[in-house]
Amino acid sequence: MQSDLVIPTIRFKKGTIEIIDQTRLPAEYEIIPLRSVESLCDAMKKLAIRGAPALGVAGAFGLLLGIEEKWRREGSWFFDSEKVDASDFPKDVSVSAISDQVATVADKIGGTRPTAINLFWALDRMRKVCEGNWRSTRDLINALYSEAKAIFREDLDICKRLGERGAALLKDGDSVLTHCNTGGLATSGYGTALGIVVAAVESGKRIEVYADETRPLLQGSRLTAWECKQRNIPVTIVCEGSAGYLMSKGIVSRVIVGADRIAANGDTANKVGTLNLAVIAKHYGVPFYVAAPYSTVDPSIKDGSQIPIEMRSEEEVKQFAGVEVAPEGAGALNPAFDVTPHNLIAAIITDEEIHYPPFDDIG
Amino acid sequence: MQSDLVIPTIRFKKGTIEIIDQTRLPAEYEIIPLRSVESLCDAMKKLAIRGAPALGVAGAFGLLLGIEEKWRREGSWFFDSEKVDASDFPKDVSVSAISDQVATVADKIGGTRPTAINLFWALDRMRKVCEGNWRSTRDLINALYSEAKAIFREDLDICKRLGERGAALLKDGDSVLTHCNTGGLATSGYGTALGIVVAAVESGKRIEVYADETRPLLQGSRLTAWECKQRNIPVTIVCEGSAGYLMSKGIVSRVIVGADRIAANGDTANKVGTLNLAVIAKHYGVPFYVAAPYSTVDPSIKDGSQIPIEMRSEEEVKQFAGVEVAPEGAGALNPAFDVTPHNLIAAIITDEEIHYPPFDDIG
Repeated sequence: MQSDLVIPTIRFKKGTIEIIDQTRLPAEYEIIPLRSVESLCDAMKKLAIRGAPALGVAGAFGLLLGIEEKWRREGSWFFDSEKVDASDFPKDVSVSAISDQVATVADKIGGTRPTAINLFWALDRMRKVCEGNWRSTRDLINALYSEAKAIFREDLDICKRLGERGAALLKDGDSVLTHCNTGGLATSGYGTALGIVVAAVESGKRIEVYADETRPLLQGSRLTAWECKQRNIPVTIVCEGSAGYLMSKGIVSRVIVGADRIAANGDTANKVGTLNLAVIAKHYGVPFYVAAPYSTVDPSIKDGSQIPIEMRSEEEVKQFAGVEVAPEGAGALNPAFDVTPHNLIAAIITDEEIHYPPFDDIG
Repeated sequence: MQSDLVIPTIRFKKGTIEIIDQTRLPAEYEIIPLRSVESLCDAMKKLAIRGAPALGVAGAFGLLLGIEEKWRREGSWFFDSEKVDASDFPKDVSVSAISDQVATVADKIGGTRPTAINLFWALDRMRKVCEGNWRSTRDLINALYSEAKAIFREDLDICKRLGERGAALLKDGDSVLTHCNTGGLATSGYGTALGIVVAAVESGKRIEVYADETRPLLQGSRLTAWECKQRNIPVTIVCEGSAGYLMSKGIVSRVIVGADRIAANGDTANKVGTLNLAVIAKHYGVPFYVAAPYSTVDPSIKDGSQIPIEMRSEEEVKQFAGVEVAPEGAGALNPAFDVTPHNLIAAIITDEEIHYPPFDDIG
C-alpha cells in the first residue's frame, strides 16, 4: 500500500488522540487533539470523526485516553504512537480500578453512536483484555495498548484485503456510485467501499466515481470528493435525487456502499439514503454491493428490524452548511441510517470473503 | 377558495411584473418588481420564480412587459392589474410590429427553461392572439392583455379543480410525501400536488405533509414547508435520502408530485429526484400520483425520452448560500429534471380528469 493512500484519520500520540476534523473539510484540513474522553465523545457525536471502522478505532483509543485522563501526571503520558511507558503509573491503583475505568469509559463512548456495531466490537475487545488474570497494572496497561494498536493496524490490513477482494468485481471503465464517505476518513486510513475503488485504480483499471453528496451532512461532497481528488480518481458530485437519472441512463454501472451493521441474514444498516439506492439499483439491474470489515456483521441480530437506528437533530436537516433553510417552527425527521434488506444486495464484500445471496453463510 | 389560501406568487401591476423572490424565502419575504424582459428572464433562470404553471403565467405577463418596455412613455404604462389603457400607444407602430415584438420576446423567454411545457404553451397562446386579423394596435393590445389575464385566472381555477379532484384520492389521516414545491408558489397561487393537500384539508381531512427538502435548491424545505406553515398544515421536512426509510416503515401513505411535462404515453418529467420516489413507491406499494394542469401534457411528444432535460450549473451542487461544500476542482452533474416512466405512476390527476394506467387517454 502506498503511504499516500493512507489518510491520517486518527492517531494516538503523546497521550492524545489526534483526528482530522471532518466537520471542516474540505475548506480546512485541520488535525485536532483530543485530550479528554468528553472531547472525544463530542467529536464522535458531531461527526468530526465518523465511519463505522474509524469509530471502532476511536473507541479503542478512547479507552487508553480514559486511563491517561484519570491517572497521568501533568506534562507526562503513558501511551505514545509507538510505545507505552507505565513506569510512573500510580502504585496505589489496582488492576480492578483500571478495569472499572475501562468499563465506565466504554459505556460513555458506546453511548455516542448506537448503530455502528464496529464501535461496540472494538470496545468489547478492549473490555475482554481486562478480563485476563493480570498480575500487575503495568501488564494490563501494556496489553490494552497492544490491543488498541492492533485494532488500528488490523483495520488498515482488513481494508486493504477488502479493497483487493472487491476490486476483482470492478471492470475497467466502470462508473461507481458511492454514498456518504467510505474512504480513508471512515477507517484507519484506507477505506471500505471507496477502498475497493482505490484498489481497482491501483491495479490499473480506469474507474470513475459518482459521489452522492449525502445530506444532511454532505460527507459525499465534502469528504469522498476530497479523498478522490487527493488520490487523482475522477469524481463527479451528484445530489441524491439524481440516482434514478444516473441509473436509468446507464451513467453508473455499479453502486458500492459501506455498512454500519450487518444482521445475520445480510440485512444492512448504512447511512440514510442507502436503501433508496438499493431499491433503484434493483429496479434498473445495476449491481448493488455492500463493503465492510467482517467485524461489521452482528451475528446476535437475526435481521435488520432489530438494528437500532440513531435519530439525529432536526437542525441538521433545517440548516445547510450553517445557513438556516427552513421556516421557523417547521419540524424535521432525521434518521441517520436506514436498513437495506438482503434481497436487494448483489454481494457483501468483507475482508474474509465475498458473500452472495442468499447470504446463508454470513452470520 | 379562501383568499388566504392564494399566495401572490406573480402579479402584473402598473406595467410591472411583481413576484415573490423565491430565492430568499423563507428567511425573507420580498416582492420584487421586474420592469424589463431581461430582469424577468434572469429571475426565471435563477428560479426567483419557478414551477411549471407559474412559468406559464410569467411567460404570458412577460410578453406584455415586452410591449411596455419597448413603447411606453416614461412614468406611464399600458397594462395594470385590472385594466389596459393603450390610448397613448404610439400611432406609428403597426400591428405587425407588435406581433414581431411578441415573437422576439417569446423566443427570449422560452429560452430560459427548456423542460416546463406550460411555459411554451402559454407563449403559444399569446402568439396565436397575434395571428388574428386585427384592425388596430389597440385591439391587439387589449386582446393580448385579456389572454394573459385569462392564463393567470384560469390557472387559479384549474388548480382549484385539480385540487378538489385529487383530494378525493386522499383519506383522512394520510401522510403525503411531496417533492420540490408544487404549491401556490409554483402556480398562480393555489398549487398542484400541494393544492390537493390544501383541498383535502379544507374539506376536513387530517393530512400530514412530509416535504422532501429537494436538493440542490431546497424548494421543499424553503418553500413547501413555508407554505404549509402559512396554511397551518402539519409539515415535517426530510432529506431525500430518507424516502426508503419513510416508505419501508409506512410513515408516508401517498406520494404526490407535480410535473413539468407529460408525454402522450404518460411519462412525466419533473424535478430531479421524482424518479427515485416513483421507483421506491412502486417497490413498497405506496400510491404515486402526478398532479398537473392538463396543459402540462405535451401530445406532440410520444414518450419521455424526447423531453429535453435542462442541465443546470455545477455550482448549485457544489455550494449553498455562498458556502462552498465541495473541494476545488471536483466536478458535479446537475440535471434539473428526470423522467418517470408511466408504468410507475398510479394516477395522473389533471383539472379535467384523473387518468389511470395504461394512460391511453392522456395524449
